[in-house]
Amino acid sequence: MTELASHRNRQIRLAARPVGLPTDRDWQATTEPVAEPDAGGVLVQTLLLSLDPAMRGWMNEGKSYIPPVGIGAVMRAGGIGRVVASKNPAFAVGDLVSGMLDVQDYALVPESRLKAAALFRIDTRLGTPAQWLNVLGMPGMTAYFGLLDIGQPKPGETVVVSGAAGAVGQTVGQLAKIKGCRVVGIAGGAAKCDWVVRDLGFDACIDYKSGPVKDGLKAECPKGIDVYFDNVGGEILDAALARLAPKARIVICGAISQYNATEGVKGPANYLSLLVNRARMEGMVVFDYAARFPQAVAELAGCLRDGRLKSREDIVRGGVEQFPSALLKLFRGENMGKLVLEVAAA
Amino acid sequence: MTELASHRNRQIRLAARPVGLPTDRDWQATTEPVAEPDAGGVLVQTLLLSLDPAMRGWMNEGKSYIPPVGIGAVMRAGGIGRVVASKNPAFAVGDLVSGMLDVQDYALVPESRLKAAALFRIDTRLGTPAQWLNVLGMPGMTAYFGLLDIGQPKPGETVVVSGAAGAVGQTVGQLAKIKGCRVVGIAGGAAKCDWVVRDLGFDACIDYKSGPVKDGLKAECPKGIDVYFDNVGGEILDAALARLAPKARIVICGAISQYNATEGVKGPANYLSLLVNRARMEGMVVFDYAARFPQAVAELAGCLRDGRLKSREDIVRGGVEQFPSALLKLFRGENMGKLVLEVAAA
Repeated sequence: MTELASHRNRQIRLAARPVGLPTDRDWQATTEPVAEPDAGGVLVQTLLLSLDPAMRGWMNEGKSYIPPVGIGAVMRAGGIGRVVASKNPAFAVGDLVSGMLDVQDYALVPESRLKAAALFRIDTRLGTPAQWLNVLGMPGMTAYFGLLDIGQPKPGETVVVSGAAGAVGQTVGQLAKIKGCRVVGIAGGAAKCDWVVRDLGFDACIDYKSGPVKDGLKAECPKGIDVYFDNVGGEILDAALARLAPKARIVICGAISQYNATEGVKGPANYLSLLVNRARMEGMVVFDYAARFPQAVAELAGCLRDGRLKSREDIVRGGVEQFPSALLKLFRGENMGKLVLEVAAA
Repeated sequence: MTELASHRNRQIRLAARPVGLPTDRDWQATTEPVAEPDAGGVLVQTLLLSLDPAMRGWMNEGKSYIPPVGIGAVMRAGGIGRVVASKNPAFAVGDLVSGMLDVQDYALVPESRLKAAALFRIDTRLGTPAQWLNVLGMPGMTAYFGLLDIGQPKPGETVVVSGAAGAVGQTVGQLAKIKGCRVVGIAGGAAKCDWVVRDLGFDACIDYKSGPVKDGLKAECPKGIDVYFDNVGGEILDAALARLAPKARIVICGAISQYNATEGVKGPANYLSLLVNRARMEGMVVFDYAARFPQAVAELAGCLRDGRLKSREDIVRGGVEQFPSALLKLFRGENMGKLVLEVAAA
C-alpha cells in the first residue's frame, strides 16, 4: 500500500464553460498524489472512461437533470476501474467496478460518496468491461427503457432511430428488431449505414450526409413512423416529425446536433405534426429507471450471449490526456459504436 | 314548401389559398336558389356559425387531419340551424340541429352526407344554441378530452392554459379548477385577464401584452407547470416549456399564433425541457373522441346547470357576408369568449 503514494493521479478539470465546441482553453490538466481511502472508502484505478454526448450539457451552467460540473472540478465521467485499495467490506482489491470515476487515473471514493458515484462490481461473465459501458451500461439502459417504456413498439410497426451507429442507437435498433419491428436507422456516412444494416440487421439506414433525410424516410417508411427514437435533434427531428404515423411516439433521448449550438437550439418547426397525428413526444432520463437496471442487464446480457444482440465499442487509447480530443470525436460523429477512452490496460 | 324556392342561399366560398391572414381576395360571395331535399335528406336554415382557429388550417393545401376546403367550395363551418324541410323521419321541420352547415344561409344535406355533416338535434334544455357551439360543442369537447384524457391533471397540480379567454381556454381552466388544480391563464389584455380571474375563478392570468410571459409564469407557478394546455404555440409555448415541472404534460391543441405565419412555423426552441423534466407533449384532435361526446355533454351540461361552469359567447351579427371580417377578429384576438356569427335570428 505504501506503493500507492508513489503513483500520481492525472486529472482533467473543467477550466471554463465552453461556447460551442469545447477547446483546449476549457480544460486544465492537473496532477495530485494518490491518497489512501478512509474507513468505508475505496480507491479505484480507472481503466476505461465512457464518452457521452450528455457530457456537453454537464459543462453548461444552469438547471438540468443533474448539477453542472463546477469550474475547477474534475470532469464528470462514468467508467470502469479496478479496486486498488479498500476499507469497505463490499469491495476487495482487484474487483472490477463501474461508477462515476471522473476523468482521472484514480478515483478516491469515500463511503459518503459511494451511492452518488453509483459504484458497483461488474460481472465479466455477462460482458467485457467495455460492454459494461455500452450495452450493459448507461447506453444500453437508455436504449432499453427509452424504446420499450416510452416508445412502446409493437410488432410490425416502423421504428426509426437517429444516431444509429452510436452507443444508444445500435442497441435501440437491435431491440426493435427483436420486438418484430421494421427498423430504419439514420447515420452519417456509408460505413456506418453499412454496418448497422449488414452486421446489426437493421432493415435500412439513411445516410444523412448523402441526401435529404426526408426523402429517405419517405422511401423507407411507406406506412409512416410509429416510433422515432431521437438522439440528434435539429433538422433530422423535423424530417421525422413530417413522416409520423397516427399515434406515433417520439422518444427524446438527446440532441447531439444542438449541444454545441452558439445561436440557440433549433426548435422542431414541424411539431404541429403531433397534433395532426395525435402523436406524442416524450423525454427520458435513464437514471429514473435505476431500480430496474438489474432486470434490463440480465435480459441484455442474455441477448448478447445468444447472439441476438451485438455490441461495438470504439476504443481510443492514450490516457486521460486524450479525453478532450476524444470528446470532440463524438461531436464530429467520428465514432462507430460506443466511444470509450482506455486510461490503463486491464 | 313552395315558399322555399323564393329564398336565396347566400354563400361564402374559398376563392384562393391565403398567404398569411386571409384577405377579401381569398373569398367569393355567391347566391344560389334554395332547393328541396331529396328522399332521406334535410334542408337546414343556418342560425349561428362557429368561428374557429382551425378554419385557417382547412384553407391550406396539404395533408392534415381533415381534407382542405376546395377552391371554389363553400367554406366549411360548424353551426346551429333549424330544419325547414325534411324527407328524413329522424328530423322534423322546426328541429334545432348542430352540424357542418358551412358558411351559407341554407344547408341542403342529402342522406348520404348526414353522417359527414355530423347532423344531430340539440336539446335546448341542456344549453342555449350558442352554448351548443361553445361548451356543449367542439370547444367544450376539446377542452374536456384534451385536459382530462391527455393532460390528466391531479388535485393540487398547476395547470396553465393559453388562449384562456377563448372558447377552449375558458372551459379548460374552469374544468381544471373543478378538478382541484391551481389554474393560471394566459391571455391578451387586462379585460380578458380580469374576466377569467373574476368571473371564471382562475387563480391568476398573465397578460402577454403587458410583459414577458416567462416572468409571469415564474411568479404564478412557483412549483412549475404540471399541465400546459397550448392553444397558441410560438413564444408562449417556449415560455411554458422553460417552466415545466418534472413529468409535466403538454397538450398541443392549437397554435393560433402560427396559423398565419408566412415564414414557416416557429418550432419550440426549449423542447429539450421535455428531456430534462421527463415531460410529454401530445397532440389531440377532438373528432377522435366522438363516441364519448354524449357523456361529456351530459357532464358539462350538469356543470352549467349547477353554476360550476360558466360560458361566454361573443356574437357577431350580420349574416354570412360578415364571415370574412369575423374570422379576422379571431386571429387578432379581439374576441372574448367563443366567437359566433349570427346568420339569422332564432
